[in-house]
Amino acid sequence: MGAPPGYRPSAWVHLLHQLPRADFQLRPVPSGFAPQEQEYQQALLLVAALAGLGLGLSLIFIAVYLIRFCCCRPPEPPGSKTPSPGGGCVTWSCIVALLAGCIGIGIGFYGNSETSDGVSQLSSALLHANHTLSAIDHLVLETVERLGEAVRTELTTLEEVLEPRTELVAAARGARRQAEAVAQQLQGLAFWQGVPLSPLQVAEDVSFVEEYRWLAYVLLLLLELLVCLFTLLGLAKQSKWLVIVMTVMSLLVLVLSWGSMGLEAATAVGLSDFYSNPDPYVLNLTQEETGLSSDILSYYFLCNQAVSNPFQQRLTLSQRALANIHSQLLGLEREAVPQFPSAQKPLLSLEETLNVTEGNFHQLVALLHCRGLHKDYGAALRGLCEDALEGLLFLLLFSLLSAGALATALCSLPRAWALFPPSDDYDDTDDDDPFNPQESKRFVQWQSSI
Amino acid sequence: MGAPPGYRPSAWVHLLHQLPRADFQLRPVPSGFAPQEQEYQQALLLVAALAGLGLGLSLIFIAVYLIRFCCCRPPEPPGSKTPSPGGGCVTWSCIVALLAGCIGIGIGFYGNSETSDGVSQLSSALLHANHTLSAIDHLVLETVERLGEAVRTELTTLEEVLEPRTELVAAARGARRQAEAVAQQLQGLAFWQGVPLSPLQVAEDVSFVEEYRWLAYVLLLLLELLVCLFTLLGLAKQSKWLVIVMTVMSLLVLVLSWGSMGLEAATAVGLSDFYSNPDPYVLNLTQEETGLSSDILSYYFLCNQAVSNPFQQRLTLSQRALANIHSQLLGLEREAVPQFPSAQKPLLSLEETLNVTEGNFHQLVALLHCRGLHKDYGAALRGLCEDALEGLLFLLLFSLLSAGALATALCSLPRAWALFPPSDDYDDTDDDDPFNPQESKRFVQWQSSI
Repeated sequence: MGAPPGYRPSAWVHLLHQLPRADFQLRPVPSGFAPQEQEYQQALLLVAALAGLGLGLSLIFIAVYLIRFCCCRPPEPPGSKTPSPGGGCVTWSCIVALLAGCIGIGIGFYGNSETSDGVSQLSSALLHANHTLSAIDHLVLETVERLGEAVRTELTTLEEVLEPRTELVAAARGARRQAEAVAQQLQGLAFWQGVPLSPLQVAEDVSFVEEYRWLAYVLLLLLELLVCLFTLLGLAKQSKWLVIVMTVMSLLVLVLSWGSMGLEAATAVGLSDFYSNPDPYVLNLTQEETGLSSDILSYYFLCNQAVSNPFQQRLTLSQRALANIHSQLLGLEREAVPQFPSAQKPLLSLEETLNVTEGNFHQLVALLHCRGLHKDYGAALRGLCEDALEGLLFLLLFSLLSAGALATALCSLPRAWALFPPSDDYDDTDDDDPFNPQESKRFVQWQSSI
Repeated sequence: MGAPPGYRPSAWVHLLHQLPRADFQLRPVPSGFAPQEQEYQQALLLVAALAGLGLGLSLIFIAVYLIRFCCCRPPEPPGSKTPSPGGGCVTWSCIVALLAGCIGIGIGFYGNSETSDGVSQLSSALLHANHTLSAIDHLVLETVERLGEAVRTELTTLEEVLEPRTELVAAARGARRQAEAVAQQLQGLAFWQGVPLSPLQVAEDVSFVEEYRWLAYVLLLLLELLVCLFTLLGLAKQSKWLVIVMTVMSLLVLVLSWGSMGLEAATAVGLSDFYSNPDPYVLNLTQEETGLSSDILSYYFLCNQAVSNPFQQRLTLSQRALANIHSQLLGLEREAVPQFPSAQKPLLSLEETLNVTEGNFHQLVALLHCRGLHKDYGAALRGLCEDALEGLLFLLLFSLLSAGALATALCSLPRAWALFPPSDDYDDTDDDDPFNPQESKRFVQWQSSI
C-alpha cells in the first residue's frame, strides 16, 4: 500500500534545509530538527538576529545618507529660486519605492492567506484524526456493551431453556466464553482511551494562535498600505506635516518589517528542517505525550509494508471467535430448536447481535487500519510544510520588499519635503495633473537649467 | 460514523443558487443542476449573455460619450493657448481607473491561483481514489492467487500424505472447499475491475484543461497589466502614438474582460447549483459511466448509517470460511502430524498462507470501507466547489473591476490625448516630476484661469 501519491518535500524545503547554521559561538550546527537542544535554538535565534542586523545596517545607512544630505549640501544663495538638482529624481524614486511597497503588500496578503490555508489544513487534519480516534473508542464501547448485554440476557435465557440437555448447555457456555473473549479482545483495540493528548485540543490551540497571527499580519499590512497611500497623498498635496508624520510611521513600519522578517526566516528554516525528516520527531513527541507503544505509533506514522499492523493478532482472534460463535449458534439452532421451541427467540436475537457485531467489527478494522490516520498525518504535514511554508516565504518576500521600499522612502522623503514650497502657497492644489502639458513646458525649462 | 466534520456549502453557494434563472423565452427555470436539460443550458447561456449585454452597453456608452465630446466641444478660437477645462480631471480619472485596474489584476492573480488550487485538490482526490481502487483490485488478485497456489500445491500434497486415513483426507478436502469459497467470495469484492471509467484518466483530463485555463488567465492578466503600465507610461511621456495603441488594446482587453466575466458567471452559477445538492447528480453520472449497482455507489457517495455496506455479506462469509479453515488446519495438526510427520511441512506452510490471507483480508476490509473513498469524494467536492468557486468569484471581481476601469480609461484616454501638445515639443520629457514645486506654481496660475 505505502503512502498515497504525492508527499514530497518541495525544492524550497531542500534549499532552506541546506543553508549552513551556527550557534552563538559560530560553531556549525547540524540541520536536523531538534528544538529542545540549546545549539539548535541558538542557530534559529541567530537566523532571526540576522534580520536585526539588517535593521541596524539599514538604519545606519539612512542616518548616514540623511546627515550627508543635510550637512554637505552646497551653500544656497539667499533668495535663490532655482530648485536644488535632482528634485524630480528624489520624488520619483520615492514614488517608485512606495509602489514597490504596495506590490509587496499584495504579495503579503497572498502569503498571509496561504499560511492561514496551510494551518487550517493542519487543524482540519487534526479534527479528522480526532473523529477517527473517537469513532474507534465509541465503536468498541458500543460493541462490547452489546455483546455483554447479549451474554447477560439472551445467552442466560438460552442456558436456562436448554438446561435438560447438558451437551447443549455446554455449547451455549462455549458461545458465552467466546463472546467474552471477543469483548476482551475488542477492549484492547480502543488504544486511544485514557490518552492525555487530544487532537481536538491541539487543533483548537493551533487555530487560536493562527487567528492572532493572521490578524497581526493583516494589521501590519494595512498599516503599511495606509502609510504608503498617505505618503503618496502627502507628496501629491505637498503637505509637509503629513509627509513628516508618514516618515515617522515609515520608520515604525520599517522596524516592524525587519522584526517580522526575522520571525519568518527563523520559522521557515525551522519548518524546512522539520519537514525534511518529520517522522522521527513526531514519533518521539507523540510517544512522550501519549505513552503509547512505538509499535502502534510507527504503524500509523509510517504506514508502509515494513510495519505490521499491531492489532493484527487481536483482530484475527476476534474474527475467529466470532466465526466460532456463529457455528455454535448454527449447531444449537439445528439441535435445540426442534426440541425446545422457546430457544428460537433468544437464538434469533443472538444471531442478530452477532451480525451487528460482525458489521461493527469490519468498521473497526477499517478505522484501525493505518490508511485513514496516516492520510490525516500526511495532510497535516503538507498543510504545515507546503502551504504554510510557501505562505511564509511570500511573507518573507513582502518583508524584504517593504524593508527595501521603506528604507528608500525614508532616504527620499526628507529630501523631497525639503523641496516643498512654504505650505501657505499650496493649500488648494488638489487637482494637480502630473501630465498636464502646461506644467511640462515649465518643467522642460527647469530641466534645461539644471 | 457519518461524514467527517466540516462539509457544508458556503454562503456564496446559497446566494448564487438562489438567484432566479430563466430560459430564452424568459420562463423561470428551477435551479437544480441539470446540465443535460435544454432549459438549464439556456439559463446558463442567458447568464453568460448578460455579460455580452454589459459589453454592448458599455461600448454604446463609450461611443456616445466620445461622440458628444468630439462634436459638442465649444468652438476653440484658432491659435488659442489656454487648455480646455477639466484636463487635469480627465488625466487623473484615467490614472485612478488604471490603478483600480491594477488592483483588479492583483485580485485576478489571487483568484486564478485559488481556482487552480481547487482544481488540483480535485485531481489529487481523484488520484487518491484511483490509488484505493487499484489497491483493492491488486490485493484481491494477489490474495486469490496465493490461495489458489496453496490449494494446488500444499493441500494436494497434504491430501496425498494423508491418503491412508479417509477422515483426515475429508478434513483436508473441507479446507480445500473453504479456500475455494474464500477465493470466490474475494473475487466478487474487486468491484472496480473491468469498469470503463478510470479516475486517473479523469484526473489527467482535468489537470490538462486546468493547465490551459490557468495559462489563458495568466496571459489575460499580463496583457491587461501591460496595457495599464504602457498607458500610464504614454500619459507620463505624453506620447500620442503609445496612447492610441493602448486605447485600441484597452478596447480589446475590455472585450476579453466581459467575455471572461460571462464564462465565470455561468460557471459560478452552475457550480453553485451543483454543490447545493451534488450527490444525486454524481450518483447518476457515475452509474451511467461505470454500470455499477446503485447499492455500491450510494454506499461510497453517501457513506452514512442509512446505507449498509454492500460487501458486508461477502466479507462475513469470507471471514467465517477463513476461521473454519483455521480450525480445520488446527484439527489436522493435532490428529495427523503425530502419525504422518511429513504432513507437518505443508500444514505449516498452509498456516502461514492463512495468516497472510487474514492480514490481506483486514486490509481489504479497510480499503473497501466507504470512509476512505468518501473522504476523497468530499475533498474533490470541496476543491471544486469551495476553493475553485471562491477563485472564480475573485476572477469575476477582477473582470468587473477591469471592465469598469477600462471603460473609464477608454472614455478618458482620447480626451487626455487631445490635450497633448504636438509631439515634437515633448520628445525628451522623461523625468517629469508630478510633485515638483516649480511645476505647481504654474499649475495654480493655470487653475485660477479656469
